Order: sequence, then structure tokens, then C-alpha cells
Amino acid sequence: MKALTLASSQESKLLLTQVQAGALKAHEVQIKVKAAALNHRDEWCRQGLYPNIQDGVILGSDGAGVVTDLGAEVDAKWLDQEVIINPALNWGDDQRAQGKEFQILGMPSNGTFAEFINVPVDRLHPKPKHMTWEEAAALPLAGLTAFRALNYRGRLQAGENLLVTGFGGGVAQFAAQFGLAAQANVFVSSSSEAKISKALQLGAKTGYNYQNENWTDLALAETGGFDLIIDGAAGDALNDLVKVAKPGGRIVFYGATLGNPGELAARKIFWNQLNIMGTTMGSDLDFEEMLAFVSKHQIKPLIDEVYNLENASKAFEKMNKGNQLGKLVLVP
Amino acid sequence: MKALTLASSQESKLLLTQVQAGALKAHEVQIKVKAAALNHRDEWCRQGLYPNIQDGVILGSDGAGVVTDLGAEVDAKWLDQEVIINPALNWGDDQRAQGKEFQILGMPSNGTFAEFINVPVDRLHPKPKHMTWEEAAALPLAGLTAFRALNYRGRLQAGENLLVTGFGGGVAQFAAQFGLAAQANVFVSSSSEAKISKALQLGAKTGYNYQNENWTDLALAETGGFDLIIDGAAGDALNDLVKVAKPGGRIVFYGATLGNPGELAARKIFWNQLNIMGTTMGSDLDFEEMLAFVSKHQIKPLIDEVYNLENASKAFEKMNKGNQLGKLVLVP
Repeated sequence: MKALTLASSQESKLLLTQVQAGALKAHEVQIKVKAAALNHRDEWCRQGLYPNIQDGVILGSDGAGVVTDLGAEVDAKWLDQEVIINPALNWGDDQRAQGKEFQILGMPSNGTFAEFINVPVDRLHPKPKHMTWEEAAALPLAGLTAFRALNYRGRLQAGENLLVTGFGGGVAQFAAQFGLAAQANVFVSSSSEAKISKALQLGAKTGYNYQNENWTDLALAETGGFDLIIDGAAGDALNDLVKVAKPGGRIVFYGATLGNPGELAARKIFWNQLNIMGTTMGSDLDFEEMLAFVSKHQIKPLIDEVYNLENASKAFEKMNKGNQLGKLVLVP
Repeated sequence: MKALTLASSQESKLLLTQVQAGALKAHEVQIKVKAAALNHRDEWCRQGLYPNIQDGVILGSDGAGVVTDLGAEVDAKWLDQEVIINPALNWGDDQRAQGKEFQILGMPSNGTFAEFINVPVDRLHPKPKHMTWEEAAALPLAGLTAFRALNYRGRLQAGENLLVTGFGGGVAQFAAQFGLAAQANVFVSSSSEAKISKALQLGAKTGYNYQNENWTDLALAETGGFDLIIDGAAGDALNDLVKVAKPGGRIVFYGATLGNPGELAARKIFWNQLNIMGTTMGSDLDFEEMLAFVSKHQIKPLIDEVYNLENASKAFEKMNKGNQLGKLVLVP
């Protein structure tokens, strides 16, 4: 079968190649991949920016497809089912945090950027009926991360002021969409006026361009502060978020693309009773609740562009530049 | 009446002087102060380290005494009652955070370091029966802060591993005592072996000397990490706490005596699903629950030394040096 492997993380080199489909183990199924989607994680794997990167692995965490073969001890009902894959492997039984065995599909285990993939049957869920294959493939990793950040970690309530920073990234767009569906007052920030326009179109109340030095003053004056902030950047910009959070507010961050924050304003954090909470991915329960939520509210992922597997390098380039608005989808 | 006023914050100068007892307003009572206690806040007021410090104010947040006079619209039942004073004024009705009107007794309003004090009747609670006057006076501000940090903010559960940093300070000693009563596994840190010994005597499992460079490795190896950490220092030491927190753990800090943390390890915080939460003082509900808790568990504050009001400057000196173990109490 055709598959996109990480040929060399040292040279950031991908390879579209023919590989043998793996033999099915007990409790596994084979899925014919109808669509897959990129995450920043895939680009970071390509660049070797994670510990324990293994060359030769098929990349890809997000995918949806049809079950084409069953390993031992798998119920026959699964054959021919249209499914979406939960890419969180071995979370464990603690809702608060993943266990030591936790992995994400697509490194070090083979991922979704291939014609077929073998996954444990307990990772499968019915494909949401209101979504195309491309949309279903775009949902898992970023949708799960956003849903846990908003719901289990952030405890978003209807009517609250929600700020989603860096609108345009996968998690951020889902956080904004989920927040709108949960009847929060949704605000976004971005450095791109085009992305802000898109957020307003979706129903966001205001978008703040964080390159404007006064954006925190503006936001405070207009909103009175945010109850919940979902952020993937951290870095020194975290102090801006401390500034625009309401007393008692929550800042939930799922990444640190700007690196470590320096000189965090400690006095403001304790006097204002703020909560700074880290989150990553989500538990099996988070995934189930996320699927129920998107079905209930008929939410469809934003898709920036769809590529053939042959053109995957173009999708990685676009991810690297960060100009996309919505998910980048690969179709084998 | 005799009272200890802040003569000059610029010169860090206190003055024991004769002042006229204030006239009672409606809803106020006059209390003959039986005992009062120092907090770091009093020393910081003396040094002018808060915004809006006003010279001439009588210092002191903690106090207990007997009601000697009633203002208009106060129920006659209060006369002659033995009471403890809640020093949190105008918290407001949001349990998550104090409102804009919030103040702490003893600056800018006149405090407890005097023979008499006038306070709103809704700040009064019956003095806990199992405490002496000195013990009752030692409880309010630090006990409230510790109780909210552990309970409303930290959600401490029986059987959890609790680390209290900087054992010896007022809030830290209450946090350790409350944690023991709540059946947590209590650990402390300190730079003083004498303070660590005292914590072990009280029932702490281990004390870590944070001047030992390996204390985080030791603590992780011995405990497997902490579910909840109560800290008043922040600063760069916060990264040590991030290191020894269990995945999903909570770090609640009520002060920043070491200043702002630099270069916080963001990746560790989100990957380990950590919670860094600020807290200060507590709501009226926190105070009521704290009083019920100390009565139920017959907890008595640790008292380092009792001074006459005439010797208050010695108590302030000791607070400034930070060598005390337990509260410094003043008796008018």
C-alpha cells in the first residue's frame, strides 16, 4: 500500500512509498483510510522536534475510513463500518491526566497517512453522520484537545466570556466553534485580519489583533474581562492573558508555541484568584462527549484545503507557514 | 485608649499612642480586644509595601475580644459576647473572587492593635470554645487563607499527598494542621531543621530542606509526587513545585515572597495537566467553614510568642526576620 513515512527527521524528509500493510493483532481492525488530516504534531515529528522520534514510521494522527478486516477477538459487527479513529492511545483510567503508557497515533505507532491502518478496535467510533469523510478526518486530535480544554478543564458555562487566542489553528477553531455552540460569548485573537473576519462570520463577537499594543485595554474595556481563555501559545504573551482574565477566571493552555513564559505576574494571579491550567489531548470520556456534542450541535470542522497523498508535502509546507484557516486534509 | 498606629510608612515607624475610640456607626459594635495577632501584612504595611498605605491608621487584622457597646440597628444579644473577628471586609457574593470593594481590616480601616475596635456586626463569630484568647486571635487571617487554599481552591481529599512549602509561616502552619485533620499525607518544606522537626512532631510524614539541591528528586522518589501543593513563595522555586507535582496536580499559591517566577516550564505544565492557582484571603463562606472545621477537629493555632502592646516593636522585628514558628500575639 501507499504510505507517507518519516524518511529522516534529521533532514525533515518525508517519503511517499510502498509498504506492506501490517498483520492484524488480536483486538485490532484494519481500516481503509478515506481521509486523514494534518496536525502541528505531524510537522513537528517531521522536524524531529519531539523526543523519541523514530524514522520509518507512517505519520498521521487523524483519520476516518471503513473497516476492511478484523483481527482475532473482534466482534464481526465492525466489518464495513464507517468509523472515526480516537488517536489517544492508552490514556488510562484517570480523567485528570494520562498515564505513563499514553501515546498518540502516528508516532511511534504507524499513523493514518496511508491507504490502510491497523488500530485497536476500542479506538473506533461511528463516523458522525452529518460530516463528509474529509470533515470527519479533520475532527479527532484538535477537536478532542479543544473539547477537553473547554469542558473538562475550562468548565465553560453558557453566557460566559470566552477568548480563544490564535484563531486559525486547528484547536483554536474548534474551541471557538464549540464555545459558540455552548452559548458562550466568543471572542478571538489573531494577527490576521482575514482570520478575524472568518471568526466574526462564524459568530464571534469581536476579534482582537494581538499585534496591536492596546489590544488588552480594548478587550477589557469592551468585555469587562474573560471568564475562560483558551491558549496554545504561552510565552510572554501569557501575561497579556493574565491581564484580560476576569477575577476568578481560567486560562487553559494546550501548547506553548511561543515557549516558556518569563516573569509571570504572580501578584496579579493570586490577588485575582486566577487559574492557569495545562491540558493536552483528552481521555476516552472526553472523546465520547466531544462526538456527542458535535452531533447534537451539527458542528462541521473548517477545512482549509484537501490534498492527495501525493501532494502531502504541500500540506506540510502550508502547516509550517501557519497561514491555513481550518484543517489540511489528505486523501489517499 | 492605647493603640499602635502606623506613624510613618516612609520611615517604617510605629507609634504606641493614646487615641480617641471611634464613634459607633449603625450595624457596628465596639469590641474590647483581648488578644490580637501579627501577619506579614502588618509588617508590609509598616514598610509601606502596599499601594494606598495611609499613615495614622491603627494596624492589625487579627483579633478576638468581648463586645462592649452596640451601634444602631444591632441586636442586643451581641452585648458581652466573646467573639472572633473575620478580617475580610466586603468580599461580595462571588465565591470565586472578591469584589472591587474588598478590604482587609487594619488598613485602610483601623485594626485590632488597640484596646478597642469598632467592626461591622456581620464580621463577628463566636470565639471557638476550645481556644484561649491568644489562640482565637491567631486564627482569622492566616487560617482563612489556608482553609480557602486547601478546600475551596485546592479541593484536598483524604489520602492525597499534600506538600506545604515554607512551613513556619502562619498560613503554612495552618495548611499543614488542616491537611492533617483532613487525613491527607502531609509533607512540608523549610530551610530550618527546627521547623521541620516541629512539623514531624505534629504528624507530617517528611520535611524537605529546600536548600538541599536534591530535594525535588528525594521528594519524588519518596512520595511519587504531590496531589496538592500550598505555596506562598512563587518565584523561580515554582518550577521545583511543577517538578514534584503529580500529573493532574494542583499548585495553589497565596503569596509571592520570592517575586515573580521566571521561565516557567510550560511544556511540563500542559503535558502533566497541572493547575497553577492563585488565592488570597477567603469569602464569608470560607470563614464559616473554617471555624466549623477547627471546632470539629479541635485544632489550636501554634503560638510562637505573646507580647504586650508596649513590646509590639519586638514582635514586628521577629516577623521581619522570619524566625518565628507559629503566630506572634499581642495583648493590649
